[in-house]
Amino acid sequence: MAADPTARVLTRRWHDGVVADTPDELIVEEPLSILLDGVLVATTMRTPGNDEELATGWCFTEGLLGGAEVLECRHCRSVQAGQPEAGQSEGAVLGSGAVVDHNTVVDPNTVVVDTGAMAPPAQPRLGMTSSSCGMCGTTAINDLAQRLEPLADPVAIDPAVLLAVVATVRASQPLFDATGAVHAAAAFDPLGNVVVVREDIGRHNAVDKVVGHLLAATPAGTPGSGLGLYVSGRASFEMVAKAWAAGFSALVAVSAPSALAVQAARTAGLVLAGFVRDDQMNLYAPATATSPSASDPGAQAP
Amino acid sequence: MAADPTARVLTRRWHDGVVADTPDELIVEEPLSILLDGVLVATTMRTPGNDEELATGWCFTEGLLGGAEVLECRHCRSVQAGQPEAGQSEGAVLGSGAVVDHNTVVDPNTVVVDTGAMAPPAQPRLGMTSSSCGMCGTTAINDLAQRLEPLADPVAIDPAVLLAVVATVRASQPLFDATGAVHAAAAFDPLGNVVVVREDIGRHNAVDKVVGHLLAATPAGTPGSGLGLYVSGRASFEMVAKAWAAGFSALVAVSAPSALAVQAARTAGLVLAGFVRDDQMNLYAPATATSPSASDPGAQAP
Repeated sequence: MAADPTARVLTRRWHDGVVADTPDELIVEEPLSILLDGVLVATTMRTPGNDEELATGWCFTEGLLGGAEVLECRHCRSVQAGQPEAGQSEGAVLGSGAVVDHNTVVDPNTVVVDTGAMAPPAQPRLGMTSSSCGMCGTTAINDLAQRLEPLADPVAIDPAVLLAVVATVRASQPLFDATGAVHAAAAFDPLGNVVVVREDIGRHNAVDKVVGHLLAATPAGTPGSGLGLYVSGRASFEMVAKAWAAGFSALVAVSAPSALAVQAARTAGLVLAGFVRDDQMNLYAPATATSPSASDPGAQAP
Repeated sequence: MAADPTARVLTRRWHDGVVADTPDELIVEEPLSILLDGVLVATTMRTPGNDEELATGWCFTEGLLGGAEVLECRHCRSVQAGQPEAGQSEGAVLGSGAVVDHNTVVDPNTVVVDTGAMAPPAQPRLGMTSSSCGMCGTTAINDLAQRLEPLADPVAIDPAVLLAVVATVRASQPLFDATGAVHAAAAFDPLGNVVVVREDIGRHNAVDKVVGHLLAATPAGTPGSGLGLYVSGRASFEMVAKAWAAGFSALVAVSAPSALAVQAARTAGLVLAGFVRDDQMNLYAPATATSPSASDPGAQAP
């Protein structure tokens, strides 16, 4: 049912003034709407594939499941008399409105998640419902700390393993090889075994797909327990928030973290490694012994 | 009033098994709340600086201004008896709760935009209010096409200029030089002159800051008219949507576009160049003469 994750487009290559028309393989980007217990909670631009993982992972890392188990997760189906309507078949360009039988149409861009909860789901963290004045990075971390405990039993992962995982994951990125346009996320164990790799045009989506994949095996538990999380880009606050929510012990980023990400990782008790390349990396969290304050990297600003 | 865009954090550098503690300069990431005519329309994680440009640019590219002129744009101020409350001074870690006089507190993480409109602003495009089943990339483009005309009078920009702008902007990215963690966006004219460069941890924010900067000079017009837009990363659908909304004639991306971005650019009549590096680039839009359909790159999928 999943649409192709790549599409071929005829392109004009311009090289030192010489022009040649040639096909190029591009990553597909389509909106995914997530309905949690009947309520639309998100629309995100994503690369099709593993949509159920993305939907459950997103709901989990955003704290919308509230400990509830996912009873069902599937693409939206609607029963119609005969063929899909004109409006829906128009959407079929990149795969939409597939007819299962002559009465049922599957929408490949909407996933319904059902927990059986009777109350409407909570709003996501950075949604439109937050208060007006007074929000800052510290309050965002405090909001997380209200919902999430510091990591209880993080596993120790050898720095050599944190380094090695970069090359291991790099060898499992077929969409990046084809298009150069996607981020990857992966979960790995303390021995350096990569449990799952997911690629998506959205870096947050790749993480949510990994979390959703793990969640299916630990429906009421902590999906990242005993594992590390790898991301192919930067470590922003949102990335640390998702790693914390899923209970990972370490977050490994190929590129730089933000100051707020470091502050959040130190609050969570999450190991945060950045600029992990070749034989070197920077360990930003936990705070080094000589660091003045685990919760206040900004205090060291010049 | 703006908080520092970078912060120094003590970091443990790990190089081939040897450890050294040393300070590292990180990009600051803080939430910005945008209040349009009294209504909270967005909270985005951004790098502090040019917040007013980000707020007005975001409202404009999301289509929330509806042709109205911005009468006032400033950080939120609240009048309080005496000093700021405990909760606010706590937020001062990375710059917050500055006291202007003994009664007025400026919130550096909230910007109010005032157009004098009496009706509440429209909802942003990919917000929580969209319909449930049936959304796809084509409907997203159709939604844009309903709001935006195809570009009326795009200026022709020589491919050599599209190439040259990469190096020009690269020389004006001090935050990237310091932290390696930010994206840049820039506006340039057909002669290759760079009009404005903005950097931000969020690539969309960098574009919105550029648009907001231009908007201040053309309050009721089309901020990108007669100009090209440069982005230091990929060209996603959202990037094309913002470039289209602002009326740019070309979008130049250092990295890859998505298939949907190409489809949107072809619909808009926007020149889209990707993988612009050294002496080569790919021109994805307009469609080449031998391309089967300007609005349907997906039809070429294998």
